[in-house]
Amino acid sequence: MGVKLEFEGRDIISIKDFSREEIDYILKVAKGMESVAAKGSDMLKGKILATLFFEPSTRTRLSFEAAMHKLGGSTIGFAEAEIASVRKGENLADTVRTVESYVDVIALRHPLEGAARLAAEFAKIPILNGGSGAEEHPTQDLLDLYTIMKERGKLNGLKIAFVGDLRYGRTVHSLAYALSLYNIELYLVSPESLKMRREVLQTIKERIPVSETTNLEKIIPLVDVLYVTRIQKERFPDPAEYIKVKGSYKIDMKTLSNAKKDLIILHPLPRVDEIAAEVDNTPYARYFQQVWNGIVVRMALLALILGATK
Amino acid sequence: MGVKLEFEGRDIISIKDFSREEIDYILKVAKGMESVAAKGSDMLKGKILATLFFEPSTRTRLSFEAAMHKLGGSTIGFAEAEIASVRKGENLADTVRTVESYVDVIALRHPLEGAARLAAEFAKIPILNGGSGAEEHPTQDLLDLYTIMKERGKLNGLKIAFVGDLRYGRTVHSLAYALSLYNIELYLVSPESLKMRREVLQTIKERIPVSETTNLEKIIPLVDVLYVTRIQKERFPDPAEYIKVKGSYKIDMKTLSNAKKDLIILHPLPRVDEIAAEVDNTPYARYFQQVWNGIVVRMALLALILGATK
Amino acid sequence: MGVKLEFEGRDIISIKDFSREEIDYILKVAKGMESVAAKGSDMLKGKILATLFFEPSTRTRLSFEAAMHKLGGSTIGFAEAEIASVRKGENLADTVRTVESYVDVIALRHPLEGAARLAAEFAKIPILNGGSGAEEHPTQDLLDLYTIMKERGKLNGLKIAFVGDLRYGRTVHSLAYALSLYNIELYLVSPESLKMRREVLQTIKERIPVSETTNLEKIIPLVDVLYVTRIQKERFPDPAEYIKVKGSYKIDMKTLSNAKKDLIILHPLPRVDEIAAEVDNTPYARYFQQVWNGIVVRMALLALILGATK
Repeated sequence: MGVKLEFEGRDIISIKDFSREEIDYILKVAKGMESVAAKGSDMLKGKILATLFFEPSTRTRLSFEAAMHKLGGSTIGFAEAEIASVRKGENLADTVRTVESYVDVIALRHPLEGAARLAAEFAKIPILNGGSGAEEHPTQDLLDLYTIMKERGKLNGLKIAFVGDLRYGRTVHSLAYALSLYNIELYLVSPESLKMRREVLQTIKERIPVSETTNLEKIIPLVDVLYVTRIQKERFPDPAEYIKVKGSYKIDMKTLSNAKKDLIILHPLPRVDEIAAEVDNTPYARYFQQVWNGIVVRMALLALILGATK
Repeated sequence: MGVKLEFEGRDIISIKDFSREEIDYILKVAKGMESVAAKGSDMLKGKILATLFFEPSTRTRLSFEAAMHKLGGSTIGFAEAEIASVRKGENLADTVRTVESYVDVIALRHPLEGAARLAAEFAKIPILNGGSGAEEHPTQDLLDLYTIMKERGKLNGLKIAFVGDLRYGRTVHSLAYALSLYNIELYLVSPESLKMRREVLQTIKERIPVSETTNLEKIIPLVDVLYVTRIQKERFPDPAEYIKVKGSYKIDMKTLSNAKKDLIILHPLPRVDEIAAEVDNTPYARYFQQVWNGIVVRMALLALILGATK
Repeated sequence: MGVKLEFEGRDIISIKDFSREEIDYILKVAKGMESVAAKGSDMLKGKILATLFFEPSTRTRLSFEAAMHKLGGSTIGFAEAEIASVRKGENLADTVRTVESYVDVIALRHPLEGAARLAAEFAKIPILNGGSGAEEHPTQDLLDLYTIMKERGKLNGLKIAFVGDLRYGRTVHSLAYALSLYNIELYLVSPESLKMRREVLQTIKERIPVSETTNLEKIIPLVDVLYVTRIQKERFPDPAEYIKVKGSYKIDMKTLSNAKKDLIILHPLPRVDEIAAEVDNTPYARYFQQVWNGIVVRMALLALILGATK
């Protein structure tokens, strides 16, 4: 019975555009893509994806392109704002209305907040937001949810900690929102100056229990999932402050000595040195699995919005 | 009966290399590609196109690549003169003789006049000129002809105006030539300093009636097709002169108040602000359809020169 | 009977990792790829190659990509170290462990010695070294061997001369090593300052006869194969010295007046002016055939390490 879920032709701009039921459905389709990804498919044969990356993000771009190839489709695009027409003064609306003649779906990455939403308003074909500005990166949110679900077998009932730069970090705000649709407990671990902003916290706190702390050591034994993000040097006016903070949030075997046995560690990558190399080969580390999960989630989205899952 | 038209293995360097009969045939094959473009095809399965773009032109490059994918082929190439061997001092002849081992056809974009012709002399495989120097851009000419034919149902008998920079504009010279093969009347609207050069005009005037004017308002009510081009600031020694000119050639609803009901407006894109956004959703605007037409015209050329239309 | 040769899953890092028996087998598989390359194939349908080029080398990149397409596979990647995650401080090990989730095989080009070996240690999927640092470029070595074998019908018994910069030239060291596995005589022709380094020469001299000379004219009549490399201006402290050397190693019809009738000239390309254009259309010139041979050799390697030749 249930509500009829309709994805064909739909834009993927913000995780906030999706109900929990819809998210669950996407994650289910993603699970079905695991075997398809391993052996390849002709589901999207004859379809073309454009990757329009106005700022470089090789990881996200290659993931979208690989997902499209694994479904039998092909890709065109650009990896930086080299686009000649942009240099000549073309606006995003015209670029999108041009490229939509070439392809069936566009994955867009843009430095400006709201760029993907604007593109979707002008385009007749679906737009996949590959990151616009600092806030929205819905395919990252979905792959993070999928990774937790897959690696822990569930979302509900988990204690999840975010560690690092919770103020400027691209993914943590929307992921926190997405997690708040489930019954989880959220721990926010960051230096004072990089705490999550009040207005972002508000909605989440209305839905789930949230604790804030600067003390990583204290929460390590409590949590089931540790979601680590980069702390960028340029955020600190005082270099000495940066060194101190960096040291206190580095995850190594010592940090993990009191961790639960089945703790999993995620990271959106790239990491610099927030997680020591010695952690990589422990069962805690799931950040490279996370990368693979990005493929199946993006395959699911491409197949859904191009109507190939019917 | 008619002459046997042979396209297999042929280079597409300049519109001037083609008779009207040949152009008509290309446009006919392009029309047949409309349905192929919509559903995809395996006509060029196993074939590879190289897009060698020594200067960026994302629009043209993506259009060629999409055309190739829609025919089931694949593409390799570069989008800027990043090519390492060029940096190391390699000449174009060697680059072409190298790349022809990798692929079945090359689409070349180059800043220098005559580059495509030179490449064709050295290559054993067909060269598609994707714009070389300021003069030749034959696939743009063909898609412009195709667009007029498709949107107006014919070429003969039409009154067509070119508006903007007719001196330096990349496409207007060769398009004027191509149109002169048909029974059309041509209106050239530009500021004095950007008038079409005498020597370019001469051949065209021998074939069709041509009027020159600086007054856009006066010719608007007369014409069936308005072909608008960008006016580039850097062409004007005096910025004040640029501002004045820019204002007088901007197409908006007021400019169009006396236009024929069935006037169509074309633009090779990208536009900056020669055409107001308010025009985009009127039936006059056909510049985004023009983009789609670029796909089918390039599909036709690829299929013809690779012998896939037999 | 013979030893069972196993290539599936294997990295291709250095020519020194392969026995002569293995090299012979690769060359044999390459020969079988000649007809496959001409008509295309689905041998690697559904497989994806990543070309991760941390320094540009369009020739090598396009050759790998064309080889993959000709086997029915697809490709993703980058052509320069634009990769966002690298800018953000990611190390090569993490990049490789990320990209291996997207693809089935990686072709890596990197400015640093040892980069390909490091990548192979971290990756679970096979790494193809597309050139790392100044020393190793195994696919170039293999295509050079294949070209001599194909154009002369054999390797054993040939007299082969290397001409040009034997000190800094990327390919000559490992090619000299590879040739030393066969019964050939090697002539090293270079200016004093660009002679092959002692330590490199040592192993080779233990296996085959090697003569060194600065006199090109003298050895021309003796040899069956002339392998010419670029002499880079920047290697000379004194520009006058460069001019002199450049002149004395330029191959033109005069240089070749005493050559054997069946001499063949190879060059890894790009050339600048080491070989005069007048040589291009003589039967001596085989450097453009060499490019084609790069395709079939890379097809052979891709098919072998992805287990598609069984």
